Amino acid sequence: MEELSTAEKPAAIRVAAICGSLRSGSFNRGLIRCAIDLCYKAISGMLIEFVDVSELPLLNTDLEIDGSYPPSVEAFRLKILGADSILFASPEYNYSLSAPLKNAIDWGSRPPNVWAGKTAAVVSVAGGSAGRRSQYHLRQVGVFVDLQFINKPEVFILGHKPPKKFDSDGNLIDPETKQQLKELLLSLQLFTLRLQRSL
Amino acid sequence: MEELSTAEKPAAIRVAAICGSLRSGSFNRGLIRCAIDLCYKAISGMLIEFVDVSELPLLNTDLEIDGSYPPSVEAFRLKILGADSILFASPEYNYSLSAPLKNAIDWGSRPPNVWAGKTAAVVSVAGGSAGRRSQYHLRQVGVFVDLQFINKPEVFILGHKPPKKFDSDGNLIDPETKQQLKELLLSLQLFTLRLQRSL
Amino acid sequence: MEELSTAEKPAAIRVAAICGSLRSGSFNRGLIRCAIDLCYKAISGMLIEFVDVSELPLLNTDLEIDGSYPPSVEAFRLKILGADSILFASPEYNYSLSAPLKNAIDWGSRPPNVWAGKTAAVVSVAGGSAGRRSQYHLRQVGVFVDLQFINKPEVFILGHKPPKKFDSDGNLIDPETKQQLKELLLSLQLFTLRLQRSL
Amino acid sequence: MEELSTAEKPAAIRVAAICGSLRSGSFNRGLIRCAIDLCYKAISGMLIEFVDVSELPLLNTDLEIDGSYPPSVEAFRLKILGADSILFASPEYNYSLSAPLKNAIDWGSRPPNVWAGKTAAVVSVAGGSAGRRSQYHLRQVGVFVDLQFINKPEVFILGHKPPKKFDSDGNLIDPETKQQLKELLLSLQLFTLRLQRSL
Repeated sequence: MEELSTAEKPAAIRVAAICGSLRSGSFNRGLIRCAIDLCYKAISGMLIEFVDVSELPLLNTDLEIDGSYPPSVEAFRLKILGADSILFASPEYNYSLSAPLKNAIDWGSRPPNVWAGKTAAVVSVAGGSAGRRSQYHLRQVGVFVDLQFINKPEVFILGHKPPKKFDSDGNLIDPETKQQLKELLLSLQLFTLRLQRSL
Repeated sequence: MEELSTAEKPAAIRVAAICGSLRSGSFNRGLIRCAIDLCYKAISGMLIEFVDVSELPLLNTDLEIDGSYPPSVEAFRLKILGADSILFASPEYNYSLSAPLKNAIDWGSRPPNVWAGKTAAVVSVAGGSAGRRSQYHLRQVGVFVDLQFINKPEVFILGHKPPKKFDSDGNLIDPETKQQLKELLLSLQLFTLRLQRSL
Repeated sequence: MEELSTAEKPAAIRVAAICGSLRSGSFNRGLIRCAIDLCYKAISGMLIEFVDVSELPLLNTDLEIDGSYPPSVEAFRLKILGADSILFASPEYNYSLSAPLKNAIDWGSRPPNVWAGKTAAVVSVAGGSAGRRSQYHLRQVGVFVDLQFINKPEVFILGHKPPKKFDSDGNLIDPETKQQLKELLLSLQLFTLRLQRSL
Repeated sequence: MEELSTAEKPAAIRVAAICGSLRSGSFNRGLIRCAIDLCYKAISGMLIEFVDVSELPLLNTDLEIDGSYPPSVEAFRLKILGADSILFASPEYNYSLSAPLKNAIDWGSRPPNVWAGKTAAVVSVAGGSAGRRSQYHLRQVGVFVDLQFINKPEVFILGHKPPKKFDSDGNLIDPETKQQLKELLLSLQLFTLRLQRSL
């Protein structure tokens, strides 16, 4: 990409990060903490905010009263609306998406769909297929809610394989994995800028 | 299948029915009510019990204390354990499973996995693809949790296409759809019996 | 999108169109003929060329001698390399991609991958799910070969449902379906231009 | 399973084995050679025959003349018809099935569908996801053509990871992988017998 003059320099891209695992020591949550840290220290023009989805009720459209959503849902939807881009940390539960992640996506898709037209990327820590099966289900969901995912790089982390990648608090400590994560963030940033600049 | 003598006649197959939509007027819930009714009136040797999944907390393994599950989860798991077979009514939310359904499956899969070795079938009412996309995700989940799904018939119902298939309370009123549902139940029964008799 | 001055006006986007059905009367082939026609008559700045895949051998890497491909494969790969964008007409065979289409994609992916970085769209005529199941498999393939698919619109055509959509030669005659196809082409064009202009 | 008296002892199960890779040194082909060998030496009541699919033309229904198929297709279909069960060795090409494998399945599905009602299992050697993505696409295909796949064990082999699993001719030499393969064959045999005995 050519250099931008100051006048043209875009504001920082705002990324909403969502974690599909709710447990406090989650490695997927650790990936998001690391991504936030990387944006402060090593990537300019990109800000990531963690958006909690643990308090959303299980999706039930009977909870929509007179076209308004429960307060936790409204607050969640506003966070997503304000973002340019979404970073998903998607564990794999039983060969598909976790329910907390799918639940958040479904609440966000209620009219008006707050995901539409945003860019997205996904990372996973898991066993077995390292999250692949959840990521392809997520990408299929993205077609409908109109999230435009980057193709590359794909980040699949086998959490329990040596070398040790996370400390006992679930923080990412493996330099190679950090580098993978950084490359994914840069790819997401570039893709988002390309689509924004051309509008 | 050959005739069975009274002595060999198996006990009725017990089917646990789970609905992925929580709203009270759900058409998918209506399919389950109809299936229960069909078993009373028109299919011998098969009993269906509706198992509510609306009170399960969002999956979070931090809620597992000393190897025990929250009371609503324990109760749910016991219901599944007691069944021979599972009937899923699976709506399609954003091209995949609904969160309430995935949430129930994930709680059931926690050790020991209560789904293992059971037979299963799935029906859907939805728009668009009539639920197909959710059913193939569900079948992939089934490989891991070791549910053996019948292949045929597949039941996909376009809920809003004429003729009117459900009344205003969400009850199935279309004879052709009832017949489809009955054939699916008979196929599930036969498949379950074949696998049970051979043990 | 803002108006472009003549100096900046991009050359026409070149689209390679591939049909997954080889039979001469194929409705999917008819969709491509119609798309080519629409580009001549109703869409400026976009040219579609049909690329035949019927003569490609079944993929077998033993046919690669000293790093070169069989002549039909080389010719095919050159056609794809010269395109900015790909239009797939994907029938659904047994709930997935047709072999001729997958075969073409696989030959194109041999090093160097000729698909990388191009934009893509897919249309289907089929029964049952109207091709949905093949399209989601195709999109998953696209992640690896690095084709960037548009999300919307999705075009799924039930070929045999009234009103009659194709004449006896397999030509598209239904105005509504033509309009759907035109909107897909315009969306592909816009997406391609957005990504090209930002480079 | 209870002991069978000689009179009731079923004939050996006949398994047709199909390889999705056509190259002569294919590791997936090596898996099939090993499976055939295991059946001779270590599993009684099960016979595997390799069925070549390399000579089938790319699927094109224009090749069906007066309801008959090209000779290579007819011969292939007869082989499948004569089998009780199918063993697929499925490489992963670009995150999905290989074209030669899909092509064989599609020819077999032409009326009358020769796969219907048979049991099936799948093994893969591949890089990346070790074939998982191809296996789930294959299982989805199986729903339509009515192949009943075993759920467990799933066999995914990373071909190039130490320890060395194949010799330079593509023969499986790793004892642990052989054991996995044997367990899969026994599971397929048991499942097939359970469904056959109950008819």
